[in-house]
Amino acid sequence: MLGRRVTLRDVAEQAGVHPSTASRAINERTRSLVDDQTVDRVLQAADRLGYRPDTLARGLKTNRTFTVGMLLPDLTNPLFPPIVRGIEDGLERAEYTVILANTDNDSDKERTVLRALLGRRIDGLILATAQREPPPAIRELIAARLPMVLVNRTMDDQSVSSVSGDDRHGIRLAVEHLVGLGHTRIAHVGGPQRTSTGLTRHDSFVESMSRCGLDVDADLIEFAHWFREAPGAEAFHRLLTRRPDVTAVVAANDLIALGCYDVLVERDLTVGTDVSVVGYNDMLFADKLCPPLTTVRVPHYQIGLRAAQLVLDEIGERSTEAVQLRLPASLVERASTGLPRDAR
Amino acid sequence: MLGRRVTLRDVAEQAGVHPSTASRAINERTRSLVDDQTVDRVLQAADRLGYRPDTLARGLKTNRTFTVGMLLPDLTNPLFPPIVRGIEDGLERAEYTVILANTDNDSDKERTVLRALLGRRIDGLILATAQREPPPAIRELIAARLPMVLVNRTMDDQSVSSVSGDDRHGIRLAVEHLVGLGHTRIAHVGGPQRTSTGLTRHDSFVESMSRCGLDVDADLIEFAHWFREAPGAEAFHRLLTRRPDVTAVVAANDLIALGCYDVLVERDLTVGTDVSVVGYNDMLFADKLCPPLTTVRVPHYQIGLRAAQLVLDEIGERSTEAVQLRLPASLVERASTGLPRDAR
Repeated sequence: MLGRRVTLRDVAEQAGVHPSTASRAINERTRSLVDDQTVDRVLQAADRLGYRPDTLARGLKTNRTFTVGMLLPDLTNPLFPPIVRGIEDGLERAEYTVILANTDNDSDKERTVLRALLGRRIDGLILATAQREPPPAIRELIAARLPMVLVNRTMDDQSVSSVSGDDRHGIRLAVEHLVGLGHTRIAHVGGPQRTSTGLTRHDSFVESMSRCGLDVDADLIEFAHWFREAPGAEAFHRLLTRRPDVTAVVAANDLIALGCYDVLVERDLTVGTDVSVVGYNDMLFADKLCPPLTTVRVPHYQIGLRAAQLVLDEIGERSTEAVQLRLPASLVERASTGLPRDAR
Repeated sequence: MLGRRVTLRDVAEQAGVHPSTASRAINERTRSLVDDQTVDRVLQAADRLGYRPDTLARGLKTNRTFTVGMLLPDLTNPLFPPIVRGIEDGLERAEYTVILANTDNDSDKERTVLRALLGRRIDGLILATAQREPPPAIRELIAARLPMVLVNRTMDDQSVSSVSGDDRHGIRLAVEHLVGLGHTRIAHVGGPQRTSTGLTRHDSFVESMSRCGLDVDADLIEFAHWFREAPGAEAFHRLLTRRPDVTAVVAANDLIALGCYDVLVERDLTVGTDVSVVGYNDMLFADKLCPPLTTVRVPHYQIGLRAAQLVLDEIGERSTEAVQLRLPASLVERASTGLPRDAR
């Protein structure tokens, strides 16, 4: 152990216990929570390794639970499992675990589950539910400097670190792909504008169309009130009724794109032939859909991994400034996009 | 509060803290872990509600962490998110949370993550990784009477409670559907036989074929070494090479069915027309595949919910005998099955 300070983790490993158990066993205030045999094993290990008092003092002061809470709308949305898996893998290396809490996009439920997480004395928080303007409960935690990282979202004031895909570039790739095929009447079914994801994807759609020299009539844009199939279908139904001449649509995510599929099938129109559809996320099975979905790939597992690293850095006080990480997006071309119907 | 014993949970609610915090605040051994203001609030709430010493004594004795561990192969397998969501919702009502640990079907990793879970002093364990013969580490925990419930799997000796779908009946529905369409040369791509799921589905395939008066040649059966697309494709490739005359296949799960899709596409055969394919699970987007997959629906969310109830019952010592719950399965007919090609 020459040349390196012996850490609590070393002691825990030597004693064959979790670091949180080692911490409890070493700390006299909490020793009674651990059975005597384990206490003996930990203290012997500390002795053997020469675990030093000053390290000890720091370990006690931190009093960590080695858990991070995560608020997410709903684990069954296919966007989240790869992000959560990345977070779990990233945290595991530091012997941390994540406790998930589903909010179902209900602000009352968000408050309740957040309180439950805090009651468990989490060391940090990962938010996949962030809105551009945080609710009071989150604002309080930011003020209290609870280590916090946003995934797939940002807040307007950028006071909290975030990891997301490069949405601006991703939507630009989608628009340029359609323009390259010859489309000019391109619609956008956006997501909720209270989320950074919904807003950025919409803004980039408008910018990218202009950059390609195309007008963006306001009636070419509709918003889904949430990032799911049914709200996507409702929005696209309104849009197509008003503008039956559109030949392509950029959906704010893959589930909204699936809603567009449903509307087209209902109207006896063929996806990719009559109307081209581009999704966003390249979720699980996007390549197996009928037809396979052209979409923008976002490295969700990597997003989770980086978010875990950031929150661990904040917990370990290795990082103090908020950073906004954007991981690159790429277009995946499949059969849901093709030449405009008037060019066939 | 007349007529009902005041519980620790009532005190926690009144004080606006998590039950684990209330427990720590009330217990003199652990009070120092909670800040003074919270201790005051909890003790006042206990006073106000008339929280009684004997209840208190029990609360102390139990010394719970209000966490349940769950071992699963991989959260990104679409089978698991609805099960996990059901578990989370079921546990939440009792203010319990689940800590997930992915094993990636690696027995070394399983041992490591299991040790980490135990280090966190989980009150119970939910296993989605069970094999028919448990490894030594799990056997030890069974002997130590750690509250434990299996989901989607059983062990041969049935010493541990389990919640799964009725696989025997589900596969019978699949075979009868194909026989009803006129198929006679029906193949089975089974899952690994060291899992109860793989074994039961295989056994039921053989039984159901016999019951329908059809011979089951051994060469109509192949096994995937795991429940995923690539192993499914490899197995079906071997099978079709040997028996190009089969007109239908019952896959042990939807991902293996997707592997069968891939093999058929590669051979320029049309799913549902040249060869009918039946999956198992009715996973997310099974209805959106190309073609939409005929499959057996299993109520995964309900399985998770019941598993949560069972493990809470065991933790609360309201249940001592192991029970094997089987929830009903049903067939969902879609475009991947049709008349045999020689009958068209």
